[in-house]
Amino acid sequence: MTAAILSIGTELTRGEITNTNESWLSSELTAMGFQVSEMAIVDDHPGRIGDALQRLAHQHDVVVATGGLGPTTDDLTTAAVAAVLGVALVRHAPSLEAIRRRFEAAGRTMSPSNEKQADFPLGADVLPNPVGTAPGFSVPIANCRAFFLPGVPREMKRIFADHIAPAIGKLAPRLTFQIRLKTFGMPESRVGEKLAGVEERFAGVTLGYRAHFPEIEVKVHAASSSLAEARALADHAAAEVRSRLADVIYGEGDDTFAEAMGRALVSRGYRLAVAESCTGGLVGHLITREPASEYFVADAVTYANSAKTRLLGVSEDVLRGHGAVSAEVAAAMAEGVRRVCGVEIGAGVTGIAGPSGATPNKPVGLVYWAVNHPGGTVVRERTFLGDRQQIQMLAAFNVLALVRDVCLGKVS
Amino acid sequence: MTAAILSIGTELTRGEITNTNESWLSSELTAMGFQVSEMAIVDDHPGRIGDALQRLAHQHDVVVATGGLGPTTDDLTTAAVAAVLGVALVRHAPSLEAIRRRFEAAGRTMSPSNEKQADFPLGADVLPNPVGTAPGFSVPIANCRAFFLPGVPREMKRIFADHIAPAIGKLAPRLTFQIRLKTFGMPESRVGEKLAGVEERFAGVTLGYRAHFPEIEVKVHAASSSLAEARALADHAAAEVRSRLADVIYGEGDDTFAEAMGRALVSRGYRLAVAESCTGGLVGHLITREPASEYFVADAVTYANSAKTRLLGVSEDVLRGHGAVSAEVAAAMAEGVRRVCGVEIGAGVTGIAGPSGATPNKPVGLVYWAVNHPGGTVVRERTFLGDRQQIQMLAAFNVLALVRDVCLGKVS
Repeated sequence: MTAAILSIGTELTRGEITNTNESWLSSELTAMGFQVSEMAIVDDHPGRIGDALQRLAHQHDVVVATGGLGPTTDDLTTAAVAAVLGVALVRHAPSLEAIRRRFEAAGRTMSPSNEKQADFPLGADVLPNPVGTAPGFSVPIANCRAFFLPGVPREMKRIFADHIAPAIGKLAPRLTFQIRLKTFGMPESRVGEKLAGVEERFAGVTLGYRAHFPEIEVKVHAASSSLAEARALADHAAAEVRSRLADVIYGEGDDTFAEAMGRALVSRGYRLAVAESCTGGLVGHLITREPASEYFVADAVTYANSAKTRLLGVSEDVLRGHGAVSAEVAAAMAEGVRRVCGVEIGAGVTGIAGPSGATPNKPVGLVYWAVNHPGGTVVRERTFLGDRQQIQMLAAFNVLALVRDVCLGKVS
Repeated sequence: MTAAILSIGTELTRGEITNTNESWLSSELTAMGFQVSEMAIVDDHPGRIGDALQRLAHQHDVVVATGGLGPTTDDLTTAAVAAVLGVALVRHAPSLEAIRRRFEAAGRTMSPSNEKQADFPLGADVLPNPVGTAPGFSVPIANCRAFFLPGVPREMKRIFADHIAPAIGKLAPRLTFQIRLKTFGMPESRVGEKLAGVEERFAGVTLGYRAHFPEIEVKVHAASSSLAEARALADHAAAEVRSRLADVIYGEGDDTFAEAMGRALVSRGYRLAVAESCTGGLVGHLITREPASEYFVADAVTYANSAKTRLLGVSEDVLRGHGAVSAEVAAAMAEGVRRVCGVEIGAGVTGIAGPSGATPNKPVGLVYWAVNHPGGTVVRERTFLGDRQQIQMLAAFNVLALVRDVCLGKVS
């Protein structure tokens, strides 16, 4: 079974927004067992929408299209589909009523332009939208089932889950299973080298890599003659991947690296306080994107030297003698924030994120970080390559990694 | 002149990565005066690469393709292009030498698999890649000029700028000019209503909206019979947009909201210190994504109540009496961080980012923020809707907005 994705909208062909619907849908369809070999994007032009739709519908079993279902004059998808089918548009009374109620619930009056969102090609199946005004719909074109969804990601995902996945789930044999392993600390090329030969050893397994800077996700994708066999195959191959990558795998699925660090802290009964300079709050931000009050107490972003002294008690002599970017200051920040906050683990980071600030001896990218713990202090130094935001991100992840390693007893 | 974009890679059709090359290229080509009405994505399959290429080349003046130029066995773009043209692949000695030197400079030995990156269809123009191993190339197909670039964004952008933009710049009449206005503080639907009629009033002007949560960018795009006229038209329309949106426009082009706040602080000679709770470091992170040492001194992320007391001197009585999420604590945090850091402006923010933490009187999304300045203290309260990360982002932007408003004398 093959599926294609059609994205519709001049904001896409003009590059005004990045098309995240496309990768979300192709990932879902692939996981359901469809082969997605082609995706297309066209602007809001009835002829081009119709041409693309005809072409994809004649080559694939399923087409999922997004966009162009809004109330404005440049939303032309529904009319283009009716033209392809050679049928009229008809108003769907229950949808009109649902749209009207949606506006009333928000204390607003429905504009006449929204009425067209209740028009569908004659014979279409309407797919209700519980989270927005634009319903989706579905029609057959030749031997293909074509689905049309609004372009707003939240609405698109909801209608896909409510109506499309159940409708097409039975079309594709679910003979695949996927395990996502999250890694940090090894470049993608090295991860690939370490995993050379895994696909050959496990017939039916393919490995995929998704880089989400600075992490690499390894997808272990298994296909077999039944879902149970695919699952067992994926489990076996994932065990092999785990043994080859060992330390750099920190979690699975939607795990974040900060959560992995948090689990390590909680397992020891430790609380954490952080002191940041060049990363400017990024370490705290990564930690608090998910709830963290069980272990996270405070983060002192001491950007100016005066703040390092006032908030953390870093001595002016140390700052003058070694410079703010030094192993000594990273250690003093970690020690200071631990003492001031009265916690078990203190982490400090200082460096030169750039683009300016380099000196003859200290290049852009030079970063020192330290963890102060009940058994002592660990300090690390690296010169990271990249732009300001990449250097900040690499530094922040390495701080989290060192805290985790200390808690796991890997360094002391 | 029309242009199409072809993205090649199974990692795209399987949804393993989001296609950012596509929107970058379409935005560049649109700005150069090309009409981009169609984009296509195919997997690493020679037949499908060839079919898509033939189709696009016969319908457009320029095709820009990315991906499939790597060293591995699933990189098949070059061979597919040679098959479309009916020509052989030939090895390009200068490219082979450049790849070899690149490996040597990195202290590594070139693998035999990299040799194929120096193979090109007979007659192709080679486009050197100074930042990676895969050169690009260009060939004519029918009346179309087709360009092939590596999929790595940094390498793709560099070769586009060095070779493609100069080569095709003269093909498209540059008769358009675009001004990007950055806004924060008004929902997209309201921005659209405020700007109703602008396109009708200025013939040749189209308005585009790009939402980058929580900001909205308004693109004023003007087309005329000369670049100078397009520019004048864009200037006139932008002036109208500015007068209608007034306060919510904070900058142009690549300006960030934190930079706009920074300019307001610097214009008054003020330095800033921040105290965060529910935003967990996000305010500091937004400020320090760009260099900020001219005005930014420190950010105390006092996540636990004990840290609010220890680092900022917020009294335990106030915390007990009003709760950590209260106007009083926001004001005490702003006052405390200003005093501890010895600066002119202190900002504080406390709230419930969720998903847990709500009480009968304090829902998820309730946030208080305050600015303490030489003339007194301003406190604000709002209940933001959204998930944890949206609430954090809205709260952080509102903190920046209040600091800016105080510096500009809009509130006191």
